Amino acid sequence: MPVQTPTGLPFDDIRHLIATMPDADIVAGDAARERQGQLVKPPGALGRLEDIAIHLATWQGKAMPTADRPMVAVFAATHGVAARGVSPYPGSVTKQMVDTFTAGKAAVNQICATFDAGLRVFDLALDLPTPDITEDAALDERACAATIAFGMQAIAGGADVLCLGEMGIGNTTIAAAICHALYGGTPEEWVGAGTGASGEILARKVETVREAIAFHGKALSDPLEVLRRVGGREIAAMAGAILAARHERVPVILDGYVVTAAAAVLHALDPRTLDHCLAGHVSAEQAHRRLLARLNLEPILDLGMRLGEGSGAALALGVVKASVACHRGMATFAQAGVSDQA
Amino acid sequence: MPVQTPTGLPFDDIRHLIATMPDADIVAGDAARERQGQLVKPPGALGRLEDIAIHLATWQGKAMPTADRPMVAVFAATHGVAARGVSPYPGSVTKQMVDTFTAGKAAVNQICATFDAGLRVFDLALDLPTPDITEDAALDERACAATIAFGMQAIAGGADVLCLGEMGIGNTTIAAAICHALYGGTPEEWVGAGTGASGEILARKVETVREAIAFHGKALSDPLEVLRRVGGREIAAMAGAILAARHERVPVILDGYVVTAAAAVLHALDPRTLDHCLAGHVSAEQAHRRLLARLNLEPILDLGMRLGEGSGAALALGVVKASVACHRGMATFAQAGVSDQA
Repeated sequence: MPVQTPTGLPFDDIRHLIATMPDADIVAGDAARERQGQLVKPPGALGRLEDIAIHLATWQGKAMPTADRPMVAVFAATHGVAARGVSPYPGSVTKQMVDTFTAGKAAVNQICATFDAGLRVFDLALDLPTPDITEDAALDERACAATIAFGMQAIAGGADVLCLGEMGIGNTTIAAAICHALYGGTPEEWVGAGTGASGEILARKVETVREAIAFHGKALSDPLEVLRRVGGREIAAMAGAILAARHERVPVILDGYVVTAAAAVLHALDPRTLDHCLAGHVSAEQAHRRLLARLNLEPILDLGMRLGEGSGAALALGVVKASVACHRGMATFAQAGVSDQA
Repeated sequence: MPVQTPTGLPFDDIRHLIATMPDADIVAGDAARERQGQLVKPPGALGRLEDIAIHLATWQGKAMPTADRPMVAVFAATHGVAARGVSPYPGSVTKQMVDTFTAGKAAVNQICATFDAGLRVFDLALDLPTPDITEDAALDERACAATIAFGMQAIAGGADVLCLGEMGIGNTTIAAAICHALYGGTPEEWVGAGTGASGEILARKVETVREAIAFHGKALSDPLEVLRRVGGREIAAMAGAILAARHERVPVILDGYVVTAAAAVLHALDPRTLDHCLAGHVSAEQAHRRLLARLNLEPILDLGMRLGEGSGAALALGVVKASVACHRGMATFAQAGVSDQA
């Protein structure tokens, strides 16, 4: 799919969208919580499934939430840092994997098919890698805002739950640079194996993050400058998708480290921006657990996955769908004629 | 569903079935592992999903395993200890919940529907509670062996994955008695809240376990005597189902504390009896985590559930189905024309 024409949305409009985002629907959430207390099970016995149903009710604004039209949106982009040898795989793999998504033969395709989820793949100017972030900003303000806006448009179409995923050789280095810029610490704390980096490749990832943060310096005090300077197109588009979903009352399921790094940019602008988001899983990428803790997000799954593609978010859809099915389909104690506690 | 006529299978036949159970199909498992290494993803990037696909291949004896005909079998029984006030719910709830399963309105029904799993509910002489285990054996040898045999027959019908579940007010007390008999320690280590016991009810659970173990004494050195004396009908039937599934090459997904206690009896007879089993989840029942560790089983899900009914096992089916879908449906690097590591 080609990139749509940039709309030139400036950063001020992003800040306005955050300022005007809808809040939790407390009435719907409370009604869902009350229903959970009446369903034919001991109070709390469905554990996290109860919380998820209440979360969906709260953010869809419906006491009886749905997960009938889930969509997995995968954003793919190319990164100048890939040429620095920060991955065991060549940068050309990004485009090859997008072709594999299109052919229906990647992991995320199979997981979507398992849970009847739609899959849309957005390639973001794959032939035009963003500059090496140790030497230049990844995007200028106009391109960054346009890509955020593209991410907003991309998720239109009536999904009731949105899973986010990404593909981009080099983008765990980008995610590490974003986290290091937002949270400080050392580059080592935020850099992990990604697709399988070790030894010299891992050392190059650490060095790339260190150089990028040093190069951009104090400009990184603004989270949108972090996104623009050390981010990338899929990061910007996913930030836009999260915001658009909020405005459209669509709960979001985050995937792994790279998706969560995009979410972290919004969180740094205003922590409430992620209140409609669930963490689909915690990946084997070591920094992901640390990042989720920073964002106060509890992952649904912990299965040692580290693939990206939205695979962890799509897998969590199974749990989310079951949660909604229980919420909607179970009888209450009164309906079932089952004796409540003595 | 009525209980079938007992067949009178004696314990010697159970021991024979264990001695003759089929072993892992190493050839199929190795072929599956090799395929996982060729699929279009970094090696190991699907984490536990890879292990699950290889597990199914190994125990189904097929390099390309299936999860097309999953079945959830729920065994329900009544327990004399329920009359001692070991649950916040009256013993009559067991039958009421079986009716709710039949009406399709319990949690497990909704989860089965979500993942296209079959559900079969077996009620085991609900009008005839087993004796209070502090005063008598739950079953005589003939009834125990017959119930194990019934559990074996119950799972016939061509499922490719079997999830086990149970319903029985009082049966977390039974599970605790089994674990205390098998592993020692204190009653408190093995007793938890169950459907929501606290205060005096919880104290009665602890005391019931203590009295039961004291009453049966040295007879509990044989795991089948543990099953017969301090177990119950659903426990015996589930032990039979696990054994039958092994013989029929059907991988099993265990549910919570009570199902796992049934599995523990087999494990005490021979640790290899559970090699074809996966732990669907770890429940909020505190002793379940300890029991899984004893059995060297790593749960797939950890979602704070504590409902029983097979709900955690059925929920894990979503992950298992996605695992199989990835294994079967993904392209290899060669097929996809994607560059492997540099």
